[in-house]
Amino acid sequence: MPNDTVSQALSVEEDCAQAEIHPLIAQRRTRRAFSSKLVEPQVVRALLEAARWAPSSMNEQPWSFILATRQHPVEFDRMLGCLLEFNVPWAQHAPVLLLAVARSSFSRSGDVNRHALYDVGQAVAALTYQAIASGLTVCQMAGFDIQKARSIYSIPDDHEPVVVVAIGYQGDPANLPEKVRRKEIAPRKRNSLDHFVFEAKWGQPSRWQDSSQTQRT
Amino acid sequence: MPNDTVSQALSVEEDCAQAEIHPLIAQRRTRRAFSSKLVEPQVVRALLEAARWAPSSMNEQPWSFILATRQHPVEFDRMLGCLLEFNVPWAQHAPVLLLAVARSSFSRSGDVNRHALYDVGQAVAALTYQAIASGLTVCQMAGFDIQKARSIYSIPDDHEPVVVVAIGYQGDPANLPEKVRRKEIAPRKRNSLDHFVFEAKWGQPSRWQDSSQTQRT
Repeated sequence: MPNDTVSQALSVEEDCAQAEIHPLIAQRRTRRAFSSKLVEPQVVRALLEAARWAPSSMNEQPWSFILATRQHPVEFDRMLGCLLEFNVPWAQHAPVLLLAVARSSFSRSGDVNRHALYDVGQAVAALTYQAIASGLTVCQMAGFDIQKARSIYSIPDDHEPVVVVAIGYQGDPANLPEKVRRKEIAPRKRNSLDHFVFEAKWGQPSRWQDSSQTQRT
Repeated sequence: MPNDTVSQALSVEEDCAQAEIHPLIAQRRTRRAFSSKLVEPQVVRALLEAARWAPSSMNEQPWSFILATRQHPVEFDRMLGCLLEFNVPWAQHAPVLLLAVARSSFSRSGDVNRHALYDVGQAVAALTYQAIASGLTVCQMAGFDIQKARSIYSIPDDHEPVVVVAIGYQGDPANLPEKVRRKEIAPRKRNSLDHFVFEAKWGQPSRWQDSSQTQRT
């Protein structure tokens, strides 16, 4: 294997422990194995508070959440029924499911909010890092039936169901279906920085590493 | 003032210090006053690494960033020139500007990626919390000229410029223009949880507080 191929392979397979980033961010990874332990209501509250304080365009706060916990089986099964089939075998064991919904227009003007989904992404990110801080694990799912969710929860037309989030304490990956288990324990992969950090022009790698050398001399 | 009006007013004006959330999330607030101190290249690298490890639908990683630092004045002025006029008086003092761009389609299939902006929101959130951990402050701006950014950076048609992020060490709000200064020091406002956390049906407040009482007995 030529050298640059090796180097590229490493750059996408290394783990983020190598980067000097905050433990909350470094420790997060998508997990699908949940223990049977329920999530305490005050912990759920902290997750929602974290989402609440996220920033948003014009402070519109375009996020809403529909909550379903295993403490309320009828509601839990209702949300589980919105998931696509491949998510059910593991998500049924999560003690908390949360459907995140975006309001597509600004509440004051009615104008389209171009940043509605972006801002919901920031709110769920805040919720996710708060979950990591609380010792929980999180899996976000795009794989759910949008129309079914809209219909069973009577979600208004100017709102958009975005993701279902499964939250709980970490369980044993050995209990997962084989295909999901392999995903759970596989090394994480990401594109290297020079694939997505540019300067001056699209596709042109940034010179910030040069600045680093400049400052050292 | 009747009691429930008082209670509602409090619920939107309280600060997040009251909620038991992680300091990284509690301490974040949008700030526009920057000191003249430059951001060290290894700190900028950690911000981008934090964004890199964000989760995304199908691990598409639909984010790209165009970086402009005050160390490279031509590039810095180029990005400053994309901002809407009202952002220039304070953003010109930020040592780092970053344009976040979303790829609208999946790279493998070409299908529309419904979660592209959502995932870019999560990447910028990770970057933001890493910035807070590094002692920096952040302001995200929707107020920039999208077409101009697309044109001067040659951003491809299947990519969408999303926000410009201003990053730096905290400065003195006294140096801000009066209108911006008032915003900088005003109490933060958010909707109360019962406005956006539902259960069973849209608009129906969640019973999670009842569960809390159940568990206590």
